[in-house]
Amino acid sequence: MSDRIDKQLAFILEIDKVKNVFRQTHLSANGRNENDAEHSWHIAVMAYLLKEYANEEIDIAKVMLMCLIHDIVEIDAGDTYAYDSIGLQTQKARESAAKERIFSMLPQEQKNEFTALFDEFEAFETAESKFAHAMDNLQPLILNDSNNGGDWREHHVTAEQVYKRQNKTKLGSHKLFEITDRLIQKNIRKGNLQE
Amino acid sequence: MSDRIDKQLAFILEIDKVKNVFRQTHLSANGRNENDAEHSWHIAVMAYLLKEYANEEIDIAKVMLMCLIHDIVEIDAGDTYAYDSIGLQTQKARESAAKERIFSMLPQEQKNEFTALFDEFEAFETAESKFAHAMDNLQPLILNDSNNGGDWREHHVTAEQVYKRQNKTKLGSHKLFEITDRLIQKNIRKGNLQE
Repeated sequence: MSDRIDKQLAFILEIDKVKNVFRQTHLSANGRNENDAEHSWHIAVMAYLLKEYANEEIDIAKVMLMCLIHDIVEIDAGDTYAYDSIGLQTQKARESAAKERIFSMLPQEQKNEFTALFDEFEAFETAESKFAHAMDNLQPLILNDSNNGGDWREHHVTAEQVYKRQNKTKLGSHKLFEITDRLIQKNIRKGNLQE
Repeated sequence: MSDRIDKQLAFILEIDKVKNVFRQTHLSANGRNENDAEHSWHIAVMAYLLKEYANEEIDIAKVMLMCLIHDIVEIDAGDTYAYDSIGLQTQKARESAAKERIFSMLPQEQKNEFTALFDEFEAFETAESKFAHAMDNLQPLILNDSNNGGDWREHHVTAEQVYKRQNKTKLGSHKLFEITDRLIQKNIRKGNLQE
């Protein structure tokens, strides 16, 4: 019992480090870079508020938990920018090693549960993982749109690249893809995204 | 429909501001001050991992959502330090006005739901709110302990003050209060908390 709770507390302290993993996305009002803990918080709340738009019936508690833990592996693996083609090649291996190290701090059955949930998110097959990915994609789009596309302009991202990634939102929510499409088109018109 | 989703998206953008509300607590490894979004993320994950220690049966999805939204009012009201006796006098009024303004951005029934959930957290009566408060109290304690009590030393906080606040953790979890007590006693011994 005591060993069990000590493991849980050590894990809880370890994941504090997620707050120091910074993303390419900037906060609204042209703020600083966002970190993974903030991003995960934001998409978990979004998932709850937007759950009515999921294509399929979803277990919203599961989606929220998936959103909350999906970036913990980045404590070791770092954030890989969505349009960083070199980084994306090694992302899987880096995240796999991180998953093993960090989730192994938990009691065995909680390690298994978090590992399974992370793997489910990555596999992109269940209704819950598709909706969680839709949140993961839509949230930086909303922030970036609010900042007049600053992140895209900085990285010379093209509309084609954005559509390639954001198209997957359709798998989680047709309705939210309509919003996505509206935001992308608006940013093309404004010259924030290269055609 | 379109009006509804526009309201939801406006709210989602608005709550981005929670990431700029900074608390007195510092991140582990003597890091910077923590913000409300990070704190809320952390306690939602904690709630899930530690749910077996709740005194009563709890709806964990409800606890997690409560954890995620309980500090949104601080966008307007600001963070009130747990040991700031002057600020605590006006906290309720400030948070009440904030709640009305911010949650009113949502469609009516989602406004009602979030308002009810926030009020339930504040009322401290249900099993879910008691467990959420236990998380809200324990998390800064864990961080502060990891930083050798720096936040307490900075604010000259006494053991009596800490016990007064942390005693309430018993209402949510006897087991987690044992941990709390262990951490407080350790920090008294180390001179980090004034007796």
